[in-house]
Amino acid sequence: MAGKILFSSDIDDPAAWAAALRALRPDLELVDWRAAAEPEAFDFALLWKPPPGGLGPYRNLKGIQSLGAGINQLDLGTLPPGVPLARLIDPHLTETMVDYAVTAVYRHFRGFDRFERQTRARRWAYEAPPAKADFPVGILGLGVLGGAIAQRLRTLGFPVSGWSRSPRPLDGITLFAGPDEFPAFLASARAFVCVLALTEHTAGILNRETMGAMPPGSVIVNMGRGGHLVEADLAALVRAGHIAGATLDVLSQEPAPADHPFYDLPEILVTPHVAGGIAPGSAAPIVIENFDRAMAGKPLLNLVDPARGY
Amino acid sequence: MAGKILFSSDIDDPAAWAAALRALRPDLELVDWRAAAEPEAFDFALLWKPPPGGLGPYRNLKGIQSLGAGINQLDLGTLPPGVPLARLIDPHLTETMVDYAVTAVYRHFRGFDRFERQTRARRWAYEAPPAKADFPVGILGLGVLGGAIAQRLRTLGFPVSGWSRSPRPLDGITLFAGPDEFPAFLASARAFVCVLALTEHTAGILNRETMGAMPPGSVIVNMGRGGHLVEADLAALVRAGHIAGATLDVLSQEPAPADHPFYDLPEILVTPHVAGGIAPGSAAPIVIENFDRAMAGKPLLNLVDPARGY
Ligand SMILES: NC(=O)c1ccc[n+]([C@@H]2O[C@H](COP(=O)([O-])OP(=O)(O)OC[C@H]3O[C@@H](n4cnc5c(N)ncnc54)[C@H](OP(=O)(O)O)[C@@H]3O)[C@@H](O)[C@H]2O)c1
Ligand SMILES: NC(=O)c1ccc[n+]([C@@H]2O[C@H](COP(=O)([O-])OP(=O)(O)OC[C@H]3O[C@@H](n4cnc5c(N)ncnc54)[C@H](OP(=O)(O)O)[C@@H]3O)[C@@H](O)[C@H]2O)c1
Repeated sequence: MAGKILFSSDIDDPAAWAAALRALRPDLELVDWRAAAEPEAFDFALLWKPPPGGLGPYRNLKGIQSLGAGINQLDLGTLPPGVPLARLIDPHLTETMVDYAVTAVYRHFRGFDRFERQTRARRWAYEAPPAKADFPVGILGLGVLGGAIAQRLRTLGFPVSGWSRSPRPLDGITLFAGPDEFPAFLASARAFVCVLALTEHTAGILNRETMGAMPPGSVIVNMGRGGHLVEADLAALVRAGHIAGATLDVLSQEPAPADHPFYDLPEILVTPHVAGGIAPGSAAPIVIENFDRAMAGKPLLNLVDPARGY
Repeated sequence: MAGKILFSSDIDDPAAWAAALRALRPDLELVDWRAAAEPEAFDFALLWKPPPGGLGPYRNLKGIQSLGAGINQLDLGTLPPGVPLARLIDPHLTETMVDYAVTAVYRHFRGFDRFERQTRARRWAYEAPPAKADFPVGILGLGVLGGAIAQRLRTLGFPVSGWSRSPRPLDGITLFAGPDEFPAFLASARAFVCVLALTEHTAGILNRETMGAMPPGSVIVNMGRGGHLVEADLAALVRAGHIAGATLDVLSQEPAPADHPFYDLPEILVTPHVAGGIAPGSAAPIVIENFDRAMAGKPLLNLVDPARGY
């Protein structure tokens, strides 16, 4: 079905998105909000955040497609009630997130974090190469991304455990669900990868108490959201020698200010929110599928449940 | 068949090897050269290097098993002529070498080398996550280890090419063989992993000319031997910006002296010869197999060809 799609983002390129959609569906017109003349003519919205004036005037929207995998950039309360909202998951996003997790986990597994520090200190200290059997990895969050990460690491030979809200069966992965099983999960691994949704229940979940309950020498990889981690608690546990290292793609403030305490800790690597990337080319089919579903009144793919908050 | 095995190494633990062999074959006696009374009573030798007095007195040896995957620690000319010599390849060695290659390749692929420098400089510079299709990896040497590395990286989604002396068919890998095809191989990748045997033909093979022929921005991973790389040439090409980074497990002198020029280049990571590890537990069956073959006059596994030099 032909249609008119509103585009609104400060961080995505409207021309690239228009070209990717046009290549597949010439009958769809993508219009940047700055050029949008008749708001009531729009059927669907593709956005990172709503335009400055909000979505009120766009009163015929039948669906909203987030340009992000998470929807924490949106204030759900300001969106038009009753219009379904979908997260965006495309194969390129999943693959880049899995690649990042593989890079970060192997970095700690093979001691490249220590070897970086030794090289800079002009030191040579041999250690025997480790076996993956002795380096269990725990994944916080087993959604679209966490599930793919868990399975790739398992295929590569790591023992893998995972933790989610509701039990999710995954081949070869030791599963834990809900608050009751969180302590057992925290004892189950040496490297912890966070890809949780950020909600009121998961904000600050990596804190002094939970990271203190991990085995000594554990490492943290945060690729969820900055709000999952209590940064002062991680700094204290690294200084105390309980947490051996961390690879952090997300921080409470991004870009991190130059005086961020993590920059004083050689055990912590900061990457500039580069783990996952959505590519218009690979994501366009999913946007189109959700446009068609919205027009037909069918449930969107990767639909957000406003009550659950993710 | 029962037998007496001579052990000689300054870097391997005789007790661990004796225990691993005894667990499988109580009829085999492993004796450290320091405690070896009647040299002519020994049937077989397991060694990193020969004992200080050489192997002359051990005149009934029917085979020599190197404790290393390479045999460059041995001066072939000093070994008893006619006694077959085998390299040691065990599943733990192969897996640790593959793990190291995966760690190093993903480190460069995902820009963690740059992010380490940026973190230390308190800088935040976003870049879009890359696709593996744009990061072809070239493997120098497609032997036991290079073949396993090539296949793992292919499975993970990298385009992979390889170069060896004689053509070796490998599924899904673009193959180049011999000096004639070396230039085309050098143009085929962005990351180059060296796992060649070290011989008179491969010594210094990574030099100003060959690395200069790689695409600008290429990275080098050397996990073969220090002698494969002309270190001053790499330093010059890194300074010139042609080679973007390197991960080096082997150097011309090990441990590297604190004033090694690589320590002045933040683009170069040095690891202390930790890529591959032989574990007595997983290697013992292969040593026993070679002992039995030597006793039966059959060809050893991973036999070294003295004429070829590897
Ligand atoms: N760094 C980056 O570049 C980047 C890029 C994209 C996404 N992300 C982050 O990755 C996160 C995960 O993405 P996704 O697509 O995998 O999300 P998803 O499919 O919604 O999965 C979220 C996971 O979190 C779990 N969870 C939510 N609340 C929980 C709770 N209270 N207790 C335990 N588990 C809970 C969910 O459990 P159930 O399975 O039981 O529902 C689910 O397993 C996103 O929210 C985003 O923040 C980061
Ligand atoms: N860093 C570490 O911790 C560590 C640990 C173990 C081993 N290593 C190194 O890894 C190396 C490779 O081990 P491997 O077991 O895979 O050895 P391998 O099975 O003997 O393979 C050697 C490879 O080098 C190729 N080659 C030899 N001479 C060549 C030439 N002139 N031109 C082109 N290719 C040539 C061979 O080609 P063909 O296939 O045509 O014969 C073969 O593919 C060892 O020699 C050792 O130095 C390093």
